[in-house]
Amino acid sequence: MSTSSSPPGPVRWERLEERTLAATRVLDLRSVHFRHPRREVDRDFVVIAASDWCNVIALTPDGQLVLVRQFRYGINDFSLEIPGGIIDPGEDPVVAGLRELREETGFVGTEARLLASVHPNPAIQNNRCHLVLVENATASSVQQWDHDEEIEVVTAPVDDVLAWARAGKITHSLVVCGLMHFEPIWRVRMGRGV
Amino acid sequence: MSTSSSPPGPVRWERLEERTLAATRVLDLRSVHFRHPRREVDRDFVVIAASDWCNVIALTPDGQLVLVRQFRYGINDFSLEIPGGIIDPGEDPVVAGLRELREETGFVGTEARLLASVHPNPAIQNNRCHLVLVENATASSVQQWDHDEEIEVVTAPVDDVLAWARAGKITHSLVVCGLMHFEPIWRVRMGRGV
Repeated sequence: MSTSSSPPGPVRWERLEERTLAATRVLDLRSVHFRHPRREVDRDFVVIAASDWCNVIALTPDGQLVLVRQFRYGINDFSLEIPGGIIDPGEDPVVAGLRELREETGFVGTEARLLASVHPNPAIQNNRCHLVLVENATASSVQQWDHDEEIEVVTAPVDDVLAWARAGKITHSLVVCGLMHFEPIWRVRMGRGV
Repeated sequence: MSTSSSPPGPVRWERLEERTLAATRVLDLRSVHFRHPRREVDRDFVVIAASDWCNVIALTPDGQLVLVRQFRYGINDFSLEIPGGIIDPGEDPVVAGLRELREETGFVGTEARLLASVHPNPAIQNNRCHLVLVENATASSVQQWDHDEEIEVVTAPVDDVLAWARAGKITHSLVVCGLMHFEPIWRVRMGRGV
């Protein structure tokens, strides 16, 4: 690793007061005042404040992944994704993942662990998305959709899902992240090496 | 692929009027009114409206990737990323990628193409992030940072960068997506198969 930092290198800005521009059910939009420690420059930056999220890679005993297809209001279109949602206050990410999987798909697993955690967008957003791996997932519960949810549950072989992500059929960045973190585990299991 | 859609399956909601809750330099927060076509249910959903973004996988002639390390206001911390930014109105994503690469790092490439496009968050955000591959990138220009940018430029072997993403040293979801889409190309070049 080689660095070519032009002086001065990046410094930590001092985070000062903030004000809420808009408060909504799923996120707050804030304007946060930062001060550069050397330049004596003050600036306001927009920050989306949201709870942490979870996304679930749910693997069935026969090597399929559990997907959900939903209408998504942000893009005004359908999206093929892995299950996931907002983590409740104080809830463990793995517990949240198991809950979202069960509620959205009716699938329940026997083993679950945290695969990785990513930042949806460090530049403008303060939260993390925790990627949870659930193994031996089987359809054994009743779906419990939120008021506005309508979800088509889809299962497909892991290699198909990886190919769909790379072909642009799966476009949700956090879903792609889940697959990126799961792929080496899958390759090792399939004897393909890392 | 097998589906187990519980009736009724997901339908396309009708997008009706919207109002802006907050307008900022980098995004607008909107409340958009949607109507379910069958249930006769009306609901407001929050949508972050933003320009499309670009992220750049820049490969040097000796098999290194060009990274940038910056202080990020959203997470109030430093983040190791690939170069990228906001696409100007009417600007081609590949042109934007080459521009951001040059401005942020001083690197210029000889070949560039669109690798993939993802949605940062289909649920609550309307824009896309275009992942651009730039080849034969060499440090041959002068960095032109925006007013608030301070960027440390880092080059590292592709395999190291992939390992950093999987070890949680690189956490920006859109950067992870770029690596996910680039990895098969790299594997083929290294003779590892897909």
